[in-house]
Amino acid sequence: MGTAPRIDTSVPTLGPCKVDNPLPYCHHIDDSSKMPLYLSSEILDGATSKNVYEFEEAGPRQKIYFDPPKTKCAIVTCGGLCPGINDVIRAIVMSAHHNYHISGIYGIRYGLQGFIPKYKHDIMELTPDSVRDIHEFGGTILSSSRGPQAPEEIVDALERMNISVLFMIGGDGTMKAAGSVTEEVLRRGLKISIIGIPKTIDNDINFVTRSFGFDTAVEKATEAIRCAHIEALGAPGGIGMVKLMGRESGFIAAQASLALKEVNFVLVPEAPFELHGPDGFLVQLKTRLEQRQHAVIVVAEGAGQDLCRIDNQVDLSGNPILGDICDVLRSEIKKFFAAEDFPYTLKYIDPSYIIRSIPANSNDRIYCGFLGQHAVHAAMAGKTGMVVSKLQERYLYLPLPLVTAKRRKLNIYSNYWRSVMESTGQPQSMFNCATKA
Amino acid sequence: MGTAPRIDTSVPTLGPCKVDNPLPYCHHIDDSSKMPLYLSSEILDGATSKNVYEFEEAGPRQKIYFDPPKTKCAIVTCGGLCPGINDVIRAIVMSAHHNYHISGIYGIRYGLQGFIPKYKHDIMELTPDSVRDIHEFGGTILSSSRGPQAPEEIVDALERMNISVLFMIGGDGTMKAAGSVTEEVLRRGLKISIIGIPKTIDNDINFVTRSFGFDTAVEKATEAIRCAHIEALGAPGGIGMVKLMGRESGFIAAQASLALKEVNFVLVPEAPFELHGPDGFLVQLKTRLEQRQHAVIVVAEGAGQDLCRIDNQVDLSGNPILGDICDVLRSEIKKFFAAEDFPYTLKYIDPSYIIRSIPANSNDRIYCGFLGQHAVHAAMAGKTGMVVSKLQERYLYLPLPLVTAKRRKLNIYSNYWRSVMESTGQPQSMFNCATKA
Amino acid sequence: MGTAPRIDTSVPTLGPCKVDNPLPYCHHIDDSSKMPLYLSSEILDGATSKNVYEFEEAGPRQKIYFDPPKTKCAIVTCGGLCPGINDVIRAIVMSAHHNYHISGIYGIRYGLQGFIPKYKHDIMELTPDSVRDIHEFGGTILSSSRGPQAPEEIVDALERMNISVLFMIGGDGTMKAAGSVTEEVLRRGLKISIIGIPKTIDNDINFVTRSFGFDTAVEKATEAIRCAHIEALGAPGGIGMVKLMGRESGFIAAQASLALKEVNFVLVPEAPFELHGPDGFLVQLKTRLEQRQHAVIVVAEGAGQDLCRIDNQVDLSGNPILGDICDVLRSEIKKFFAAEDFPYTLKYIDPSYIIRSIPANSNDRIYCGFLGQHAVHAAMAGKTGMVVSKLQERYLYLPLPLVTAKRRKLNIYSNYWRSVMESTGQPQSMFNCATKA
Amino acid sequence: MGTAPRIDTSVPTLGPCKVDNPLPYCHHIDDSSKMPLYLSSEILDGATSKNVYEFEEAGPRQKIYFDPPKTKCAIVTCGGLCPGINDVIRAIVMSAHHNYHISGIYGIRYGLQGFIPKYKHDIMELTPDSVRDIHEFGGTILSSSRGPQAPEEIVDALERMNISVLFMIGGDGTMKAAGSVTEEVLRRGLKISIIGIPKTIDNDINFVTRSFGFDTAVEKATEAIRCAHIEALGAPGGIGMVKLMGRESGFIAAQASLALKEVNFVLVPEAPFELHGPDGFLVQLKTRLEQRQHAVIVVAEGAGQDLCRIDNQVDLSGNPILGDICDVLRSEIKKFFAAEDFPYTLKYIDPSYIIRSIPANSNDRIYCGFLGQHAVHAAMAGKTGMVVSKLQERYLYLPLPLVTAKRRKLNIYSNYWRSVMESTGQPQSMFNCATKA
Repeated sequence: MGTAPRIDTSVPTLGPCKVDNPLPYCHHIDDSSKMPLYLSSEILDGATSKNVYEFEEAGPRQKIYFDPPKTKCAIVTCGGLCPGINDVIRAIVMSAHHNYHISGIYGIRYGLQGFIPKYKHDIMELTPDSVRDIHEFGGTILSSSRGPQAPEEIVDALERMNISVLFMIGGDGTMKAAGSVTEEVLRRGLKISIIGIPKTIDNDINFVTRSFGFDTAVEKATEAIRCAHIEALGAPGGIGMVKLMGRESGFIAAQASLALKEVNFVLVPEAPFELHGPDGFLVQLKTRLEQRQHAVIVVAEGAGQDLCRIDNQVDLSGNPILGDICDVLRSEIKKFFAAEDFPYTLKYIDPSYIIRSIPANSNDRIYCGFLGQHAVHAAMAGKTGMVVSKLQERYLYLPLPLVTAKRRKLNIYSNYWRSVMESTGQPQSMFNCATKA
Repeated sequence: MGTAPRIDTSVPTLGPCKVDNPLPYCHHIDDSSKMPLYLSSEILDGATSKNVYEFEEAGPRQKIYFDPPKTKCAIVTCGGLCPGINDVIRAIVMSAHHNYHISGIYGIRYGLQGFIPKYKHDIMELTPDSVRDIHEFGGTILSSSRGPQAPEEIVDALERMNISVLFMIGGDGTMKAAGSVTEEVLRRGLKISIIGIPKTIDNDINFVTRSFGFDTAVEKATEAIRCAHIEALGAPGGIGMVKLMGRESGFIAAQASLALKEVNFVLVPEAPFELHGPDGFLVQLKTRLEQRQHAVIVVAEGAGQDLCRIDNQVDLSGNPILGDICDVLRSEIKKFFAAEDFPYTLKYIDPSYIIRSIPANSNDRIYCGFLGQHAVHAAMAGKTGMVVSKLQERYLYLPLPLVTAKRRKLNIYSNYWRSVMESTGQPQSMFNCATKA
Repeated sequence: MGTAPRIDTSVPTLGPCKVDNPLPYCHHIDDSSKMPLYLSSEILDGATSKNVYEFEEAGPRQKIYFDPPKTKCAIVTCGGLCPGINDVIRAIVMSAHHNYHISGIYGIRYGLQGFIPKYKHDIMELTPDSVRDIHEFGGTILSSSRGPQAPEEIVDALERMNISVLFMIGGDGTMKAAGSVTEEVLRRGLKISIIGIPKTIDNDINFVTRSFGFDTAVEKATEAIRCAHIEALGAPGGIGMVKLMGRESGFIAAQASLALKEVNFVLVPEAPFELHGPDGFLVQLKTRLEQRQHAVIVVAEGAGQDLCRIDNQVDLSGNPILGDICDVLRSEIKKFFAAEDFPYTLKYIDPSYIIRSIPANSNDRIYCGFLGQHAVHAAMAGKTGMVVSKLQERYLYLPLPLVTAKRRKLNIYSNYWRSVMESTGQPQSMFNCATKA
Repeated sequence: MGTAPRIDTSVPTLGPCKVDNPLPYCHHIDDSSKMPLYLSSEILDGATSKNVYEFEEAGPRQKIYFDPPKTKCAIVTCGGLCPGINDVIRAIVMSAHHNYHISGIYGIRYGLQGFIPKYKHDIMELTPDSVRDIHEFGGTILSSSRGPQAPEEIVDALERMNISVLFMIGGDGTMKAAGSVTEEVLRRGLKISIIGIPKTIDNDINFVTRSFGFDTAVEKATEAIRCAHIEALGAPGGIGMVKLMGRESGFIAAQASLALKEVNFVLVPEAPFELHGPDGFLVQLKTRLEQRQHAVIVVAEGAGQDLCRIDNQVDLSGNPILGDICDVLRSEIKKFFAAEDFPYTLKYIDPSYIIRSIPANSNDRIYCGFLGQHAVHAAMAGKTGMVVSKLQERYLYLPLPLVTAKRRKLNIYSNYWRSVMESTGQPQSMFNCATKA
């Protein structure tokens, strides 16, 4: 079994907690009582299913660090939209107000831009009344933006506004920014808690089994797949192609294909493939069309990047700009089938912005409610430099470095992926070398 | 008032009806009793709201032409998908079977290709059992294809298969093909009834107030607009752009904009616009963003074709290939805002195939049910060269030439269009000359 | 053909219009130019399809009666919920504000109670901002109540509040109240316009082809029917029973049965039936179960009232309290099948409050938008004692007495009803005498 | 910490596995390698969060017991409907056919009745083609029934039909029946595998974190709650009451209340309450109405049974017949508010059969897919007397006695329940004694 890899699961705090938690009737969580969990290698490189790790359990503490009537909080939402952001905002506001009676909650508008004076964005005061119905709408009432801002300027703004707690809802880049802001706060000797709530529709956050909004996204993605299937059935040589989110991990593509078993090819970043040759994608597609007259292809946006030749460019968030694999596929399909004189009809659906912007479903809504509540419990107890996570059905507090260390990916040697392959019927590999092996 | 334009509303028949209609408890419609309707100029060029025309009312006749036990029918579906096709198929099968007890109903597969031997498409036998649940699925169980086939070959196939009635579900091109087939049948002296059920998701069929599937399409289109709105709100300078169907008429774009009042610009083929200059679209868009920080744009695919420079190409169905106006808009917006140094974020949604391929909603489902039933009543009474239409809440039988004479278009001088403009708040015209007028 | 019945279609006005309509780019409607329509006997007793009547067309007038900056409006919503009320409110507010720039719009809370001081209900000021998103929610933001209030007290309140226009959204009783209020206004020589927007989920308003919310209600009702069908299929001798709205008219039950063709029995107020005897409902139900092992029954709440023995009681709105026909059916089914020793399982669904309280679909939303706009156009032109209606695809202004004269009912001798019967397969009559006839 | 309670987690088998698993590319699970899990006291009485237990991991085994070409399977579905049954059936058929190529799969119709000759129910042959689209429909294509049948007769039927594997999908009673059938098989020395897939919409199965269909049910239940809220807002003193499933456990009521935060009172079986007295439900309800003019009440059907006085009757499945708590509440509310002269309007929604009979959502669909696959893997490996379960995100094989030992219940001292209480704002207890404590 070898030696289990070591990780630091301890969460930083601003100092000892001396204030009584005002929360009534509460089953308080004791910091010293750790939650043991078995981690598999999919969560932690090198771990086996027998390695136990101890984590801080999320929840209200008996004593808290901040004195609620003197505490102001701020919330900022960064990066692309994802179902459930408004639910998290709502839960933070409701919990901070009703459980802790804190003195003010402020919404920073347009992401980290909202901290920077030159952008001249307003601040929103958030109250139970102003957030009452926001969960019925997708998106974020605070708006968002991409890209980093200087941690110094952010902490300047927090100081100016007299903020004790900053809740940062965002993706990988935002969690890294949260780390820099935490450090800058520490450097200045300030007592400001920085709490991250990781958001990624790609579901690729390390140490988070399922990121919020993912379940809603999969549900909505199946609608597009159903339509692609109907379109494929509706024409001779019908091909329905659906592009789904997934820059580095194919979770949505895989999960949606399991949910609606009409998919014949799932292309994900974790499983490279060749286009040409006897085992390549194009021949496989033609074979499928000859046998069944139609085909449904689901493509994660980050699939087949080796086939897309893009210079090393990054977007505002610092993510590499992806080549458009669906463009490549469509033009290669066109050339290949023209050469083969094989008539086909391709219908292409890109539902990304329809998926990202819908309200959360019940499952995600409940999840977001707990994420928001636990973020407030953590903040009030003076924890900082951490995120709220759900891992194996437990809500946990994790130090920021754990979740930003790497991106979670599909294990293409797992029985999960095998089930995906089975449900599509596609070959285990679309590499020409594969047949010779 | 001038002279009312004259039109021929009489429907051809194969001959006198001598067989008793087996339909029990029926309120039979008498051919000689015409349905008078006032037609406006939007339906008939030159007509005023005081001009009365007489039409054949749809419904069962007391005597029918074909002897049911000796009658075989065929159904073919052509062109693009549209919600409700399966409902029409189902209604034809159920009515032919349960009302008239005809001897066989056959589904021609893959559109008009299905008649041509070289394509080797199978024929499907259609029974109440085989069509029982098809209304729960979008698309067409018969599949479809684009493009004409020789009327002679189609009539050859009808003769070979001993078909007495052919139901043709399709768009403008299919209705013209129905006319050619009717003529070829007449030329050969055959007794085959050709009945059209016009299908167009663009809702641009002449003498049809609302084509089937349109209501469902509008409902689904509003979902995409809602998402575009949420995306636009979610970023600084947020623009949400939605491309909707509408090659020559902007009905879906207009109706969906009325249904979800978040749209700020509706661009339709009937209302040309300029991009540049003080009254052009780009300046208007910038003004909107300055005032409200976000904008939602709905574009009918046929809008602004003068701005798209495409050679005169046609697709398989004979329709001109449209330039991609959204491509033009996006690149012009990029150039313009770059020149103005105005930051923006544009999210583009093309929901076309998601809209076309969903099942019909209740409203369309009921409508399709009546279209199918009335098609069977017409066929059994020996009518031919006609379509079933719903005009001003009456089901009518119309001769084919009436509906193929021209495409219906939005009247941009109507109070309907004024309501659309009001709900968007966009200027009445985006022509620079307009300001001088 | 006999003599056509005469009706008075003229709409009262408060006086001559002298103020210019501020609406730009408008296709103004001229009062003197009437809209001719053919009315059938289903709309007007004794009319034939050849009788033409002339109506006032809805829309903006070139000159208006009220001076907008001096005009205050009020809106009240009465009776039960119905999809689309918020859309009508929103359209009135938006049109009054943006088109006419009137000085204030007030929402009367909790129906007519809101006018009566003793109830102490607040008044809501309605602005474009406060109504912006209300169409995304069902119900009415003003709340509602049942029952009449003295017209004198209502007019007292209008005088006190200095209201020039009252928009009344409600059912039959509310339209009658609108009549009394109009008379009281007239008696006092006041210049207050009373405009009704008829609301009835039963779709039984005279001279209104389809009342707002009806289409949404039918769509939602089909969901319940689908569930009843699945439940019926899921057990031996499975019976699924769905109770739908329809106190005196079975429109929803009939329409929903057409939309989802899984219904085997539709019971409506217009078609009485017997329970017992060889042709009665119970024997028919047993026959169906023997043949197909399951049955779906849709019951309009007002069906079979002769079987329910209830004293002559009325509810707060003055409507007779109905006997619970589904209670009777269930207990009679229990007795009958017990006596026959025939095992069955009955699942009963009453989706009424789920149907009434959902947001309007796109179709109804657009409809409500026009109703609200046309109500404002009418009011500003000084019309009173009238309702806005849509008849044969035209928006019209009708005097109140036309719509309160009688309730619209299903014609059970029409081809529409025959189609319903065909889709269910139920016998044309469930009267024992019927067989002998 | 005390002594950890001991449980037997070993799964019985029919004998040693000697046949190669035909499944390609597979990550085989080794029987001897156990999956360790920490169990809390909510799963196992007396366990603490530090007690580790070892379970059999679900999945394909390298060697299997049955020889596929000689193996016939049967599937039976028992008890009430629940979203996802068809998905489980589909997954079993697909996996048995495509993974193991077994020789025949048979559907037993109408639950355990289907085994008993006197009922004369047909057997359905199940093939990939016949189950292809069944996941798009709710219910069970096999139909179901309630109540036990003699294990001897069931095993007689299995012998007659030459069945090697029986998959039993059903609730608590069915799992007990599975135990009896397993014993009868053993008694006769037969080699028939009995595999249970526990089904309960109440989510109260022991050792199953979330039963299939539960997530779908919660999502649908929130729709009814939203409607109840709108109805409550729509009338003076508006009360919306929703009855949800939950005979002995309030999971759906609690979860749905968390998902849609409009609920003011959640009544569940685990938390008894008093109606009268200063701390009782009725006074609390009145207080809420006085403060906010409306209230939403969610009631699990098994709540407040001490208030319902029903004799000890049981239904066909052997479950106690519950008193109708909503009847009691409605009549007590009527009496109480009449006595207090407090006007109110109560709208009551019972969505049970609408919730049970819808198709599964994506989340449940994927879950059901894995349950079905793992059931087949277990069966082919000769396991018997067991169920497939998902516990803390792992699919496990559990011996039948573990899951039938007791029903899972809400822990009303947990932070989960506290979150429910917080989201409703209802008092922690509605016992009069509570105030004195």
